[in-house]
Formats: sequence, C-alpha cells, structure tokens
Amino acid sequence: MPINRREFNHALVFSLGSLTLRRSRLQPTPLRINSQRLMDHIFGLGEFGKNPQGGASRVAYSDADKQGREYVLGLLKAAQLDTAIDAGGNLIGKRPSRDAKLKPLLIGSHVDTVPEGGNYDGVVGSLGAIEVAQTLAENKVTLRHPLEVVIFQNEEGGLIGSRAIDGELTEKELDLVSRSGKTIRDGINFIGGDASKLREVKRQKGDIAAYVELHIEQGNTLDSEHVNIGVVEGIVGINWWDVTIEGFANHAGTTAMNNRQDALLAAAKFIEAVNRIVTSVPGRQVGTVGRINAFPGAPNVIPGKVLLSLELRDLDTAKIKMLYEKIYAEAQEIAKASKTKFDFKEINVNIPAPTDPRIRSLISDAARELGLTTKAMPSGAGHDAQDMARLGPVGMIFVPSIGGISHSPKEFSRPNDIANGANVLLHTLLKLDKSV
Amino acid sequence: MPINRREFNHALVFSLGSLTLRRSRLQPTPLRINSQRLMDHIFGLGEFGKNPQGGASRVAYSDADKQGREYVLGLLKAAQLDTAIDAGGNLIGKRPSRDAKLKPLLIGSHVDTVPEGGNYDGVVGSLGAIEVAQTLAENKVTLRHPLEVVIFQNEEGGLIGSRAIDGELTEKELDLVSRSGKTIRDGINFIGGDASKLREVKRQKGDIAAYVELHIEQGNTLDSEHVNIGVVEGIVGINWWDVTIEGFANHAGTTAMNNRQDALLAAAKFIEAVNRIVTSVPGRQVGTVGRINAFPGAPNVIPGKVLLSLELRDLDTAKIKMLYEKIYAEAQEIAKASKTKFDFKEINVNIPAPTDPRIRSLISDAARELGLTTKAMPSGAGHDAQDMARLGPVGMIFVPSIGGISHSPKEFSRPNDIANGANVLLHTLLKLDKSV
Repeated sequence: MPINRREFNHALVFSLGSLTLRRSRLQPTPLRINSQRLMDHIFGLGEFGKNPQGGASRVAYSDADKQGREYVLGLLKAAQLDTAIDAGGNLIGKRPSRDAKLKPLLIGSHVDTVPEGGNYDGVVGSLGAIEVAQTLAENKVTLRHPLEVVIFQNEEGGLIGSRAIDGELTEKELDLVSRSGKTIRDGINFIGGDASKLREVKRQKGDIAAYVELHIEQGNTLDSEHVNIGVVEGIVGINWWDVTIEGFANHAGTTAMNNRQDALLAAAKFIEAVNRIVTSVPGRQVGTVGRINAFPGAPNVIPGKVLLSLELRDLDTAKIKMLYEKIYAEAQEIAKASKTKFDFKEINVNIPAPTDPRIRSLISDAARELGLTTKAMPSGAGHDAQDMARLGPVGMIFVPSIGGISHSPKEFSRPNDIANGANVLLHTLLKLDKSV
Repeated sequence: MPINRREFNHALVFSLGSLTLRRSRLQPTPLRINSQRLMDHIFGLGEFGKNPQGGASRVAYSDADKQGREYVLGLLKAAQLDTAIDAGGNLIGKRPSRDAKLKPLLIGSHVDTVPEGGNYDGVVGSLGAIEVAQTLAENKVTLRHPLEVVIFQNEEGGLIGSRAIDGELTEKELDLVSRSGKTIRDGINFIGGDASKLREVKRQKGDIAAYVELHIEQGNTLDSEHVNIGVVEGIVGINWWDVTIEGFANHAGTTAMNNRQDALLAAAKFIEAVNRIVTSVPGRQVGTVGRINAFPGAPNVIPGKVLLSLELRDLDTAKIKMLYEKIYAEAQEIAKASKTKFDFKEINVNIPAPTDPRIRSLISDAARELGLTTKAMPSGAGHDAQDMARLGPVGMIFVPSIGGISHSPKEFSRPNDIANGANVLLHTLLKLDKSV
C-alpha cells in the first residue's frame, strides 16, 4: 500500500511535464524483456563446458568457466554496461543513474556449475539480469539508482565471490583446494581477479540499496502446483552434524540376535526417526541423512561403528533447534535399546537469511500485474543473496524447475517460465527504483 | 544306549585277561589330557605372528603361518605321530590302529588366523587334537581305527585345505589371490604342498569313519549361560545377497520431504525389517546387514542409490527360504511406499551341514561322564567339519568364548574350559572307536 501511494504521488509529479509519461506511470508499463534473445544467450553459454549427455560442467576456475565468463563479459558489454572484473573475480556491469548519490541497486547471480551440472542453475538469473539491463538500455530507461549487474564467481564451491564482497574470505580459506584442482587464491587470479587486493571489494552494511536475484527453484513445488513465480521468504539456515554410532563389531554367524550391538541397525532406526520427526510438524523444513559409512563393512561382520551426516534446514533457527533436540533425544533412546552410543558433532552452521518484506511485496505486485500466479516459499538452497543480505535488503524470484531436478544434466526450466521470471525481475527493479 | 551296551560287552571280553583292565572299562576311565602342556603349546604357537596389541596374525601362506606350521609339525612329531604334509598343504599326523582295515577316525582343526586375529580360533581344536594323540601315546592306548590328526590349511580364507580333500578346488580358484598376496596355488606350494597333485589328496564319501572337531564357540551363548560344552547340531547354511536400492538423487535443500525418493531412508526401513523378521520366529537363525554404501554420499544430497549386503544363516534351508521370502515381500512394500526399487542378487550359498546324531550323543555322554554341562546348538560360523561332512559322519565340540568375542585380539577362552573341551574330544574319540 505505501508503495502504491508513493508510486502514484511520484507519477503526479511528472504528470505536469508529459502526458505520455503520465500514462506510462499510471497504467501497467508495456516494458518486456526479449525472451528469444535471453534463450539464445542461455544456449550460447551452454556451449562452454557442454557435456555429451547434456548440461554443462563449468566448475569454478576451470578453463570452461573462464571461457564462459568471457562470453558473459561480452553480453554485459552488449547490454551497454560499463564492465569490470573486481579483485574478487566477480564480473560487474554498471549502468549510470539519474542520481549518482543514491546507493546502487544490484541484480545478478552466478554462471559456474557443479560438475555435470545443468544449463539453468545460476545462468537464468545471471543472463536474466543482463537481459533486464539490455532492455533498459534499448528503451533508454535511466533509473534513479545506479544499477550493477553482478555475476558472482564460484557460487557452487561455497559462495566465494559474494563472500569476498562481504569481506569473509580468510587467508586460510584462500589456500583451500577447490574442485578445479586450483586453490581458491590461484583460481581468483586465474579468472582475472587479484586475491591480494580483496580489501578493495569489501562492502559494508548499508552500501547497497537492494539486491534482487532471479533463480530456478531447484525443487518441484512450483512445477507440481502449477505456479508461475516463487516469492522467496528467505534462504534457509543449514545445520550439519557428523554423527558417530559406536556398537561392537562381531561375527555375524556366531553372535545371537539378542546379543548384538549392531551400529548399523541403530543407524537405520536413527535415519527413520530423523524422517519421522522432521515430517511430524507442519512447514517446509527438511532433514537429510546423505552420507553413511559402516565399519568394518563386511557382509559377515556385525557393524561396530557407523558414521553418518545429519543436515537440517529451515527459515527459523528455533525450529531447527527444536527438531534437533527431538532427534537427539530419540537417538539416546535408540542407543539405550541397542546398547550403542551416539555422538553428535556440529560442523557447519549457516544462519537463515530472510528476504526483505517490502521487496517480497514488490515481486508479488510485479508478478500480479504481469498476470502471473505466485507462491511464498523458502529457498532450501544457499544463494549469493544470503551474503548480499548482510549489506542491505534482498529479494529472490524463483521460476519452476521441471520435476524439481537440479545439479544434473536433466535440469530444465521452460523458456516461457524463464521469460516470466526475467520480466518480474525487470518490473521489481523498476518498482524498487521508485520506492527505495 | 546301544553304545553303552556295546562298551559293556567289549569290556567283558577283556575282563578275562586283567582285572585292572576290567575295572578301567567299567568305571569312568581316568584318562585325562595334560592341561598345562596344552596351554604351553597354545602360547608357544601364539609367538608366531604375535601382535603388539595381543593375539596373532598368521594369515595363510604368510611367513608367520609357515613358521607356525613348522612349530605345529614339531608337536605332531612329539605326539609320536607319523607326519606328512599332503599335496593340499594340510599337516597330517597318523597313529596306527589295531585293525588296519578300518577306516580312519579324524580329529583336527586349523592354525591360520584372520589378520589381527586371536590365539584360540582353530588353535584350541588343532593343539587339543594333538594333545589327545599325545595322551593316547603316553598311555599306550592303541585304537581299533587308524587315527589321523589333520591341521587344515587356510581355513579362514575359504576352507581351502578341507575343500582340497573334498576335491572341490578348481584351477580358477587356485589362481585367486589370497590375503597373503600370494595366489592360493603359490600359497599351497609355499607351505610345502604341491598344487599340481591335488588329485592325490581327494577322498571319497565313505573314506573316513568319522571326523570330530573341537573349537571355540565364537559366540557368547555358552559363556552367558554358564554351560561347559556346546554339542554342535550342525554348521549353518549361509545365504548372501547383494541388494541394490534405486531412488533419485536430488538437492537436500530444495526437495520437499514428500517429494523425495530417498534410497537411504528405504534402506533404513529395510535394515529394520530384516532384524524384525529374523527375530519374529523362535530359533537361532541370524540375519545381518553388514555392508552399506550410499551414493553420491554427500550430506547435502538425497541418496539416489544404496548398495547393501544381506546375509541369512540357519541350520534349516527351508527356514532361510521362508525368512528371505518375508524380507523380499516387505522390501517390495517399502519400495512402493518410498518410490524406490529393490533388486536382490544371490551371490553365495553354503548349504547347512548337520552333524551326526550318534556322535552328538557320544559327545553328550563323554561330557556328562566328565561332570560337565552341555547345550545343543548350531555353529553359526563355517568350519572344516562342514567339508568333512561330505566324506562321513562329523561332530563338533564347542568351548566357551568369553564375551563371545572372536576374530579379534580380545578373543579369549579359559584354560579350564579348553582342558574340558580336549578331554571331551578324547573320550568322544574313545567311544567312537568302539562304536563305529
């Protein structure tokens, strides 16, 4: 409501100058991105690291990643943006504003992939953001705020580019070897950054007016519910534990069933309990046991030890804590009944990153004005937006992933859905420009 | 009963010659093995391949195995046996009989160990058999039947020595690499056998009068129930399946709980079902899932595929079949509910080898006369006796394993229990000699 009123007042100010301008402010604007060009760019980028079985492998700091980024740099230039590679290795394209004193509005995503990844994760948001900038340029629309299209580097390997902007990369982390085989430090230098000057890219809280990211959902909620646009409520917190279950390894032939301390049987009951507890309360929280190792691991030996991972994700830290406490309590009961011992070691915590409620409203408004259906939903995956949320208000726009498949050559989003997402990004940006 | 009557008649025949002889036949014989010497031999053999943390590693065909066998060959000679190494690499010690036309009675076990094994598995039965032979020699007792003490080679690596006597080793199996790093063929030659002459060691059904093996239980039934002697009803059949569970690997953050095809969650329900079904009927059957691998095996990816092993053991093939059918049926239900697919591949079958009922009675009688308690029980582990069962009647005598621990440096049996077992072996042999 306040936004609509403000928009109306804003339009009134300009109505004195031009009837045409006034009409375009009061009616839904006809501005649309070029869907065909956007798809051409997506397929064009897909040629770099293209896999025979479909999809692409553009692991950060690989040759394919570097070549793909050069292609994207060309697109940024074609969109009439002033381009640069920052010291963190991120590609930046700037568009001047009507008011140089205002803080910048950022849009973007990433173009690196997991090994044997798809053509849409990160790419839709990156090339969608460039398409929005090109549409503005072609229509000679100059925003009040400076616009920055940011293509973050190495999202898949730990949000490296966006964390460089947050100033979070330590010297120790720079020395870690990435999936490319290069250290992160060498990787940043390889793609045109300068790891010795990361201080230059660090931004402070309040340095940005807002950040909006378009992305494929990577889940199947929108697809299965036939919704056009996901309005992301936030990026979930991720808690991860290494769980060790100690039993007693013994001969599978000579040890009676009632004399066993079977660590794998205890693990099985634990895995079942995790699923049961996580699904016992309403909401979109998820819990996963994705890794398991049983020792000694022979068909004729009762497992004496099991290592497994437990991951819980939700928008609400308190809910994660509540679920973990229930899981922990049930593990103690399983341990008692099976004469085993459970040990939990917390090894990774990402706190939830809520999106800005005003930007969520703008995304919903933009979608509605374009005749699209929306659904509020969490992002179960991590995104560069969670790091940008430390600098200013953020929003995320999801488009459907067919079958919910991601990180796979089978990843697919329909061209029409992608165009819808880019148009929602465009109009969210236009509304934001007026309202912040 | 027929055995006791025959023993009585037999005693009567000799009563005319000597009152002393008659008394020894009608009263419980005072013949006893030398417990201290037997323990000295057990600790003496334990010096070969001795591990710093306790126990021994005498993996078949290793230097420690070869040296340990030389020590045992010395013990066979000290027991006044005619020694030989057969072409299959088994150590044989023979004691002549009163009636050379009778088929031989065999006693023995093995002295090779698993890596980081204990000092008792196989050793108690091997050195116990030698001690029985030495006791007979010292007491100038000549049996009606020829006696053979057989120390089978490479029991732990697949009953190789006893299967050579059954004529079961194929050329292909001889070329397999054993845990020593040598092929079985090279290993047999290394320890003094001749793999090119295996035909020489092959025996036919009916070639032996009987085989009796003393062994540690390797389970904890006797220990926990405070029973002196286990009278083995048979060696269980072992069925083993490789189970593949196919789900769908997907993003653990973006895939809602109700949209998952989690192969590991299905595996957990399967493991729980195996335990529940195996323990749902009375008996000593066992069922084990000892090996599990989940793919891709990352904390943030829902497992799309799980490979696991299923092993079922029982004396009764029909019971194994019944349990498997229940497990298979429940797996189909789990598959349906979890949108996964189960595939079972049978990869190994050992049929059950029942012991001879008459020998079981003789073992029970011998134990009772020695004032020892007994319990009839299956052998959940495989033994050379299962191969000898193809040639003639077999029996097995178990002594308690403290805590049921085996294949471990912590494996332990009390000296008194070991002496009891060897004395039961001695008197079972004496009774057998008269009754078969």
